[in-house]
Amino acid sequence: MRAHELASIVGGKILGDGSVEVNEPVPIEMADSKSTIFLLDEKFDKPLNVRVVVSKKKPRNIEADAIILVENPREAFIKTLSLFYKKFTEPIADGFKVIGKNCEISSSARLFPFVYIGNNVKIGDGTFIYPFVFIEENVEIGRHTIIHSNVVIGRDVKIGDYVIIHSGTVIGADGFGFEKKEDGYLKIPQIGGVIIEDDVEIGANCTIDRATIGNTVIKKGVKLDDQVHIAHNVIVGEHTVMAAQTGIAGSTKIGKWVMMGGQVGVKDHTEVADYTIVMAQSGITKPTESGKMYVGSPAREARKAWRELAFLSKLEELFKRVAILEKRLEEKDDKE
Amino acid sequence: MRAHELASIVGGKILGDGSVEVNEPVPIEMADSKSTIFLLDEKFDKPLNVRVVVSKKKPRNIEADAIILVENPREAFIKTLSLFYKKFTEPIADGFKVIGKNCEISSSARLFPFVYIGNNVKIGDGTFIYPFVFIEENVEIGRHTIIHSNVVIGRDVKIGDYVIIHSGTVIGADGFGFEKKEDGYLKIPQIGGVIIEDDVEIGANCTIDRATIGNTVIKKGVKLDDQVHIAHNVIVGEHTVMAAQTGIAGSTKIGKWVMMGGQVGVKDHTEVADYTIVMAQSGITKPTESGKMYVGSPAREARKAWRELAFLSKLEELFKRVAILEKRLEEKDDKE
Amino acid sequence: MRAHELASIVGGKILGDGSVEVNEPVPIEMADSKSTIFLLDEKFDKPLNVRVVVSKKKPRNIEADAIILVENPREAFIKTLSLFYKKFTEPIADGFKVIGKNCEISSSARLFPFVYIGNNVKIGDGTFIYPFVFIEENVEIGRHTIIHSNVVIGRDVKIGDYVIIHSGTVIGADGFGFEKKEDGYLKIPQIGGVIIEDDVEIGANCTIDRATIGNTVIKKGVKLDDQVHIAHNVIVGEHTVMAAQTGIAGSTKIGKWVMMGGQVGVKDHTEVADYTIVMAQSGITKPTESGKMYVGSPAREARKAWRELAFLSKLEELFKRVAILEKRLEEKDDKE
Repeated sequence: MRAHELASIVGGKILGDGSVEVNEPVPIEMADSKSTIFLLDEKFDKPLNVRVVVSKKKPRNIEADAIILVENPREAFIKTLSLFYKKFTEPIADGFKVIGKNCEISSSARLFPFVYIGNNVKIGDGTFIYPFVFIEENVEIGRHTIIHSNVVIGRDVKIGDYVIIHSGTVIGADGFGFEKKEDGYLKIPQIGGVIIEDDVEIGANCTIDRATIGNTVIKKGVKLDDQVHIAHNVIVGEHTVMAAQTGIAGSTKIGKWVMMGGQVGVKDHTEVADYTIVMAQSGITKPTESGKMYVGSPAREARKAWRELAFLSKLEELFKRVAILEKRLEEKDDKE
Repeated sequence: MRAHELASIVGGKILGDGSVEVNEPVPIEMADSKSTIFLLDEKFDKPLNVRVVVSKKKPRNIEADAIILVENPREAFIKTLSLFYKKFTEPIADGFKVIGKNCEISSSARLFPFVYIGNNVKIGDGTFIYPFVFIEENVEIGRHTIIHSNVVIGRDVKIGDYVIIHSGTVIGADGFGFEKKEDGYLKIPQIGGVIIEDDVEIGANCTIDRATIGNTVIKKGVKLDDQVHIAHNVIVGEHTVMAAQTGIAGSTKIGKWVMMGGQVGVKDHTEVADYTIVMAQSGITKPTESGKMYVGSPAREARKAWRELAFLSKLEELFKRVAILEKRLEEKDDKE
Repeated sequence: MRAHELASIVGGKILGDGSVEVNEPVPIEMADSKSTIFLLDEKFDKPLNVRVVVSKKKPRNIEADAIILVENPREAFIKTLSLFYKKFTEPIADGFKVIGKNCEISSSARLFPFVYIGNNVKIGDGTFIYPFVFIEENVEIGRHTIIHSNVVIGRDVKIGDYVIIHSGTVIGADGFGFEKKEDGYLKIPQIGGVIIEDDVEIGANCTIDRATIGNTVIKKGVKLDDQVHIAHNVIVGEHTVMAAQTGIAGSTKIGKWVMMGGQVGVKDHTEVADYTIVMAQSGITKPTESGKMYVGSPAREARKAWRELAFLSKLEELFKRVAILEKRLEEKDDKE
């Protein structure tokens, strides 16, 4: 790709030599004289010598063979990334597959070697199933979905269209349900399923448990980072985002457009309202209010929590003030 | 199954038409006119029209073709779930297996395709080994145990009877032991093993490391949720339960009948007494007392921690009270 | 091995019968009359009867057929463990392999059955690839590296020499990057790679995401425990150590010789200075200072945080003191 081609793709205006080649973009810190870079931070001001720079304004200190001026460098950056993104690795061999009875697998689906697909499984058009994926039985997977390597999909799971599930994730392990008895815990059989709607992306090594009865549900457009845990019977609302290592306990209902930082925990049977924001490492133990931000373990409304933290940091001073008061009162007593 | 059959299985009394069919139970919120539901929450009071309802008393607002009255609806629910639970998925093909030398594998064990079983492995009667399971060598697995897909079992691991290990879990990776040297960390070889006793259930994507020497031990009846981490040389006592994403550091000894919430951490070389209860996200750094509850990071005895939290929330008020005292004392000084 | 042989390997002096056999060392609590033990804790004082004991001084209460006296029992212990460490399990069968085009795989590398190696992959001398490992494409793996079972290595990943990656770990899943739009989140394509330098050890079920552009980098000698998460574009400096379940958010730069306890979180785009120490469960939200210790969530310099905690624990007393002051002032007012 030439610089003038990139300029036309991102709707930019070219300064300099439009015929130079555009390499895969690199971070500014790694740039050399052959690099393509995007100036996303307008404050960046170190001298640099690169081949192609995409920027909002002509950069002061960057020498480049070609400068592409765009209204929104971040949008241009994302568009450019998609040009270089090799989303699909095609299978390089056939064989070593096990496919069950009564399966409906689209002829345009790509099954890699080393997949095990149980009975009664449907796989839609253009869907990829990478190696070492186990699909138990009675599973439906939609169109243009990507199931990465070493993913496990238990029985009675439904996965929508344009879903991405990263490697090592387990969908449909038994929910964690036991009944305490005198001589030990009795397993509560987990007979429900899991539903994952369209446009969901799930990170690597996540766990999404099946429901006791009914379904654990991950709604349209949800994005989960790596090592997220979703317990049985949880419902996660549309377009909710959770950062890595967050865990949601059983039967909790998370609203739509919720944002959770990493390592957040949410108690079982709790309602998290739409548009709630939860800071990293917080622990939600009570219902939240829509659009509010929460922090801490146990979590409180952020402004309240921060206010308390501020007072806490002045606590040493308060001890001193009280000691002075005591002393002065003592002195008064002595005088009297 | 007919309603009168279910009634007799759960020891209940039938009202209405005992001949109607019983479907797989569903959550009350999802019920329609063909559903079987269990009324576990006696306060539930919305009007509903279902086919079968199991309840302690005749429900006021629920119309049903058949009502099954039982003493304990929760017990009836668990018993019913077990009737619908499809615990075992049978292998649908043979082949694609590697089995080592000197193995003793029961003829009633089911090995799925794509299993790798190393040398000197014993597998007991009725045990299931799902696809993509790697069993290294010198491993013993008891009877009626289920090793789900993509589980890894390292060398020198012993697993008892009626154990369930969910997908993606790694038993017997090296303990995390290094010796700090001038030029880097020297690996301390981890030559011990792991022992998992009878009736243990381990969730998906857990990690249970091998001991440096001796064994990491998970005792009878322990239940671990998904993504739990057990470090080298830890001993977990009988019937202890840990919720998801909890981590136990090296050489720690957890007593029996302990209950831990999710995302709990326990320091290395710490003793957690029998019957200890640890709230979610807490961090245990010191020995606990039997039967007490702990909360916070670092964790303290719960009543003490909550008391402190209560004072903390009144801290702003205290600052005001001290300011008033200061002002009044100032006024007194002025008067004198 | 005989006791006199072990004595000469660890540079020790033998007392008693040097011809007795040395068994695999066991923890002192598990020792019997045939055991080899190491007396690492000089305060240990219980009577014991074993076959071989390695110790700094002649132990008072331990009867042994052979005593090996050494200057540094811990060093002798680690050296002895390495004699008993069975690092490599050799593949027991051939076949069931998929290997792509343009691969350069050393003839001394051991590939187990059930490996999938994509196009353009280089694997160095003496490297082991265990079963159910998926290597996507354009991957380089150095010499004497061990890739344990069920590991996933995505495209464009470089792994150095003498690296150990434990089972279930996923290297090179997409970084968690999305652009918020009116109708949902747009995926930011992640086209970068991952570089893992020499002598790195990575625990089981970890996730190390690929960079958006450029590389996520784990530098020489880094040791990561199980279930650690490293997000896209993170750089982890040489000889840094992280305990289990720690998570580092995107574009964060961790210095060298940093030590992190378990379940630590670090915010995105944060700089953690060289030699920083972070206590377990802490949350780093701001740059740290070299060599300082941090604790809490949000984390503060440890001495400051502990000071605050100490005041917090005296807060109840402070409330009482203020109440007394108020009462006394009241009394003074009454008198006047």
